[in-house]
Amino acid sequence: MITCLGGGIGAARVWTALAAAASPAQLTLVVNTADDVWMHGLRICPDIDTTLYALSGRQDRERGWGVRDETFRCMDTLRSLGEEVWFNLGDRDLATHLLRTGRLRTGASLTEVTAELADRMCLAAAILPMSDTEVQTRVRIEAGGWLHYQEFLVRRGARDRVREVVWAGSEEAEPAPGVLDAIARADLVVLAPSNPVASLLPILGLPGVRKALAATAAPVVAITPVVTGVPIADPGEAMRARSRAGLLAALGRDHTATDVAAHLAGLIDAFVLDPADGNERDAIEATGVDTVVLPTLLHLTDDPALIEWLLARARGAAVPPPVAVP
Amino acid sequence: MITCLGGGIGAARVWTALAAAASPAQLTLVVNTADDVWMHGLRICPDIDTTLYALSGRQDRERGWGVRDETFRCMDTLRSLGEEVWFNLGDRDLATHLLRTGRLRTGASLTEVTAELADRMCLAAAILPMSDTEVQTRVRIEAGGWLHYQEFLVRRGARDRVREVVWAGSEEAEPAPGVLDAIARADLVVLAPSNPVASLLPILGLPGVRKALAATAAPVVAITPVVTGVPIADPGEAMRARSRAGLLAALGRDHTATDVAAHLAGLIDAFVLDPADGNERDAIEATGVDTVVLPTLLHLTDDPALIEWLLARARGAAVPPPVAVP
Repeated sequence: MITCLGGGIGAARVWTALAAAASPAQLTLVVNTADDVWMHGLRICPDIDTTLYALSGRQDRERGWGVRDETFRCMDTLRSLGEEVWFNLGDRDLATHLLRTGRLRTGASLTEVTAELADRMCLAAAILPMSDTEVQTRVRIEAGGWLHYQEFLVRRGARDRVREVVWAGSEEAEPAPGVLDAIARADLVVLAPSNPVASLLPILGLPGVRKALAATAAPVVAITPVVTGVPIADPGEAMRARSRAGLLAALGRDHTATDVAAHLAGLIDAFVLDPADGNERDAIEATGVDTVVLPTLLHLTDDPALIEWLLARARGAAVPPPVAVP
Repeated sequence: MITCLGGGIGAARVWTALAAAASPAQLTLVVNTADDVWMHGLRICPDIDTTLYALSGRQDRERGWGVRDETFRCMDTLRSLGEEVWFNLGDRDLATHLLRTGRLRTGASLTEVTAELADRMCLAAAILPMSDTEVQTRVRIEAGGWLHYQEFLVRRGARDRVREVVWAGSEEAEPAPGVLDAIARADLVVLAPSNPVASLLPILGLPGVRKALAATAAPVVAITPVVTGVPIADPGEAMRARSRAGLLAALGRDHTATDVAAHLAGLIDAFVLDPADGNERDAIEATGVDTVVLPTLLHLTDDPALIEWLLARARGAAVPPPVAVP
């Protein structure tokens, strides 16, 4: 069993490739919910939905979020009623939020409704929210005031300088049922290439998760979420990079693979570095983290090496294959 | 000022005609909310929405409910996820429910959000929910069990024999702010041609409403909601007629204008009977209710007599104009 932690577009790319290469029933995905937001009375779970849509083939790959063949008549009507709409929800996408919110309002847990949605979309992978309790990534910006992470990211385009980040509710939250067990029973634990501050740290900050990672017999590997050696053209990717950089800066870290690896040192057994940043290998190894260099940008490469290496690690192959650093 | 009580399609037809003939700012519409329903986590207010859509020209007149130029991509997607969808919400219609539910969830009252929606749709008429407290018309059917009124009507097509009707929460509910005052200050109070059991009695049953109707200096007139002398072709109209008949039967009443007038006797100063049922005039007058015969089916007639008579009554014209009974 492979247990993955994270959330977002980068994570979904790896998870989709893993599900295609392995048996999806071997996958347990523990998905960040700290950027969930209540919008128009609906519970929106962007990272869970990206996971559901990507794994079920519903995702709009060009846009990177939401559903294929989408229309936005509901949001257009909201705008025509004078409402400020900064978080676009497509008409088909809304069905997911309606189903979820209806179930939550009648007493289901987020774990239950997420499993139901995965089942309705015929997914064999186990998809777990990180917690049934609401945790919220909040960002204090230089311009003043605290923002919900989605406001910082989507509404303001991640352009603000970030002074502070907190995960409100994190200390009182419990990991969702099955999360700690999925880490304990795993053959491999993967920290997905997700925004380390917005999508990984909220999971790692839940009571018991770091302890479970330390205790599991499985190797824990992180795939770099930062590839600075490849220029970014897509505006969405650029916004997500700004967000990563801004949040890392608030933690006193640079937007580099090396700084992310240093932040995770002690938790992980190996760090997968992208060849584009291969020159950082020695710096990362110097922090005591075993480093493997493999192509990580799955939207830009057909190279199956990363997935094959992950599957090999899950089968117990201890030694990373030799990879030439360019 | 004309204060109208009721809700639904028949009511909306009269209110739209009144708003066109008088100044809409002179109208206060007290709308039934006892057939409101929570669906997919959203607060649906069918009678308020029919009012908003009809008065603002958004209504789909052929279908009788919902918005013009509508699509149903969200509901189609819910169905494709295996969800039973028996209450169809269009993509544009959903915007209303999202706006309302979002406001309610952040502490607004239904009165406040209804006023906001009316304002967003540029309506000058005052539209008041009957209550900010939830009241629910519940129906016990012969087949056994209690149903929400919408389940009886929409899901089961009003085909069940009804044993009992209750308005759950009615006795503890308060009329919404402004309702009793709108009755007290009116020049004319109109009980709209609405399902008498599902749309009128919930309003009349709120604490203080009957007393306010008895105390107001304004004449109180009811427009017949039952016209049996005109054959019904439209399936929607037929379903609504079944619903009226079934609910009236549970109160020991026949589905006739006479029985409705008898049920309202003591509350009203005049009853408007449709010429198609003109032969019931003597029977109604025998119950002590002044009866006026005027064409009431505004979707079938261009005759302005009903609206002109209402406006004349509001101006203090005490004597109904002579009308020939066919």
